[in-house]
Amino acid sequence: PINTERLWGSLMEMAQVGPGQAGGNRRLALTDEDRAGRDLFLHWARQDGFEPTTDAIGNLFVRRPGTDPTLDPVVMGSHLDTQPTGGRFDGVLGVLAGLEVLRSLNDHGIQTRHPIDVAVWMNEEGARFSPPMMGSGVWAGVFTRQEILDKQGQDGSRLGDELQRLGWNGDAPADHRQRPFAACFELHIEQGPVLEDAGRQIGVVTGARAQRWYEVTITGQEAHAGPTPMRLRRDALVGAARIVDLVNRIGQVDGDDGCATVGILDVHPHSRNVIPGRVFLTADLRHPDEEQLKDMHHRFHRETVAIGEAANLKVEIKDFWHSAALPFDAGLVDSVRDAARALGYSHQDIVSGAGHDTVYVARVCRAAMIFVPCEGGISHNEAENIQPGDAQRGCAVLFEAVRTAAGR
Amino acid sequence: PINTERLWGSLMEMAQVGPGQAGGNRRLALTDEDRAGRDLFLHWARQDGFEPTTDAIGNLFVRRPGTDPTLDPVVMGSHLDTQPTGGRFDGVLGVLAGLEVLRSLNDHGIQTRHPIDVAVWMNEEGARFSPPMMGSGVWAGVFTRQEILDKQGQDGSRLGDELQRLGWNGDAPADHRQRPFAACFELHIEQGPVLEDAGRQIGVVTGARAQRWYEVTITGQEAHAGPTPMRLRRDALVGAARIVDLVNRIGQVDGDDGCATVGILDVHPHSRNVIPGRVFLTADLRHPDEEQLKDMHHRFHRETVAIGEAANLKVEIKDFWHSAALPFDAGLVDSVRDAARALGYSHQDIVSGAGHDTVYVARVCRAAMIFVPCEGGISHNEAENIQPGDAQRGCAVLFEAVRTAAGR
Ligand SMILES: NC(=O)NCCC(=O)O
Ligand SMILES: NC(=O)NCCC(=O)O
Repeated sequence: PINTERLWGSLMEMAQVGPGQAGGNRRLALTDEDRAGRDLFLHWARQDGFEPTTDAIGNLFVRRPGTDPTLDPVVMGSHLDTQPTGGRFDGVLGVLAGLEVLRSLNDHGIQTRHPIDVAVWMNEEGARFSPPMMGSGVWAGVFTRQEILDKQGQDGSRLGDELQRLGWNGDAPADHRQRPFAACFELHIEQGPVLEDAGRQIGVVTGARAQRWYEVTITGQEAHAGPTPMRLRRDALVGAARIVDLVNRIGQVDGDDGCATVGILDVHPHSRNVIPGRVFLTADLRHPDEEQLKDMHHRFHRETVAIGEAANLKVEIKDFWHSAALPFDAGLVDSVRDAARALGYSHQDIVSGAGHDTVYVARVCRAAMIFVPCEGGISHNEAENIQPGDAQRGCAVLFEAVRTAAGR
Repeated sequence: PINTERLWGSLMEMAQVGPGQAGGNRRLALTDEDRAGRDLFLHWARQDGFEPTTDAIGNLFVRRPGTDPTLDPVVMGSHLDTQPTGGRFDGVLGVLAGLEVLRSLNDHGIQTRHPIDVAVWMNEEGARFSPPMMGSGVWAGVFTRQEILDKQGQDGSRLGDELQRLGWNGDAPADHRQRPFAACFELHIEQGPVLEDAGRQIGVVTGARAQRWYEVTITGQEAHAGPTPMRLRRDALVGAARIVDLVNRIGQVDGDDGCATVGILDVHPHSRNVIPGRVFLTADLRHPDEEQLKDMHHRFHRETVAIGEAANLKVEIKDFWHSAALPFDAGLVDSVRDAARALGYSHQDIVSGAGHDTVYVARVCRAAMIFVPCEGGISHNEAENIQPGDAQRGCAVLFEAVRTAAGR
């Protein structure tokens, strides 16, 4: 039922907005590039008569009405913001496949009982402003609106100011109790190698890994890199290097289940001939099993403190963010599996290694996700790639699952 | 013969220019703060009738004439630029003690055969623009003027443009052959703990350690910090952490003689949930013995390459800078020792752990240095501190050594 050429064409056109330096995209949340991406999407939605609504935290919804105006919408949500060196499909595929579903329903004159919305969530990536999944998190009641408005960006900007600048602080309440969904689906690229390695076309996502994020500040003593004897040094970067190594070892304890990453590390005062006096770093630990993640968490705390003590460094650990492991709605997961089977696509169940807006949505409403493989499992990289057939199959499964949920 | 109150007063007044956030200074080379520091010094020099000359690379000289106009000057040189979080005495003491020597010679109506100059060298620290000791290096023929003009700062600026902006590209040739010195002295804080630990008031500097600086770029593959299995990662920061640890171990092989530091480490793309695809870092290795430094150099190269290979990372090492170990002029070193002894100050011979402008000057002319202890041996830190007595003793030794060299 899907127009693959139209879907692929809109993906390629969106990829022109906020181009990266290596074929990907740089549309950091709440920047002018992010606005330009959203404006292009809005232009398309309005062209086809889908009415937009912006809520008070900058989530955008465009609607195709249903036949029963008393019913809550079935929602297809994802995001248009990217990592600093992001790919063309992470998030974008879910939004534009959603638009393609609405367009195809129009093409075929299909009516549904529930209205159907495409949601563009505010700041999913969590790159410029952390943590991730902010817009969906506010909607789901995980964060208060005010705490998110007060977030500071890597560039020193305040989220609330950026929202105002863009005019994205809409009138609709950003609150699932006042704007509930009947069901929610998200199509996304896998961002890992499992489906490709197994030769499967569709991933039926049963849930997402739990994750914990940290901020660590290591304080030693700035001193001259020449005349200061090694035995007297309190080198914050030497301590930080041991923490990076620790995080890497913690990630490896449980085969492909656990993982752990340091993505940011800043050195102060950042001069070639000064022993670093302070280092800031972030750590990200993940595991599908909440209890095992807790073990990783305790080990991280314990051994990081020990590294600081051994090297005479002050170490402060802030537990920055926790996203719990949550299984998706069994009925909706079944409907995704049924759709893949009915369409004749090879498929398998899979646990998402990444967080997604729909992980937060699932806390307060029935939700499920669909994965398609991406080349080499590479994402958060400008080289991220999929084929038109992947987009088409993912969109077709989305179409079937949404149509079923939205009723005739 | 020295006016300690006047010397200390000018040190404290200079410390008001480009204040840091913790009691120290931020007068990075060729910034407006650096200009303000130089302007204050020029104001003082002009007040007392010492004529300024700026050379073509931004070195500033102020002169007290001698009785024999055919003779080359005896020079007291150091610098007014600081580290990003620098102290109030590093470099500044040498310049303002030089000015105090000229003022005291005036006070006492002492004539000398040679003219006596105070040199303010351009960019000694090498923090904003690397490597360090640039102005003295051009004068000594270590660098060409053009290569230094083309240097890029950490902030992306070009050194030549900054020089022009400040009007510091003077008419005098920046060339020791056209502007030779009869002798050169530099008073400096030790920047390490040796004198303080030994309870000595004066360090008679016999030479400086050799040093080698490097730039290392580690390239892996950016990928998502969640769904990418640990076994498939090519995490540039994990490799970089091993290099930081290696550098630290290399620094420890030879007790207090060798040392090694990573002062800068930049992570790309710098996002919490992206496996770093690229890291840039600098390394600084030092040893008083050139041959031993060569061993450290070879080990650094060999083991860094091995770290890259083991972790499937591309590693590029650039040999960025080398400053050879060079003994100071034996006669001038003796004159410093004699002056300390005559003044009744406790003293000892010492090898400088840091590079100094006078290390470059010594390549082409007779030169020597005088150290005074600094509190806790701490430097390149806003907390850097000395007492008025330290400044007075160092300046008095400088006065005697310069007066001897400048002749009656
Ligand atoms: N899909 C995605 O990149 N989500 C951001 C949150 C995470 O890093 O898991
Ligand atoms: N004294 C000083 O900080 N010099 C800069 C060059 C070096 O790091 O040795």
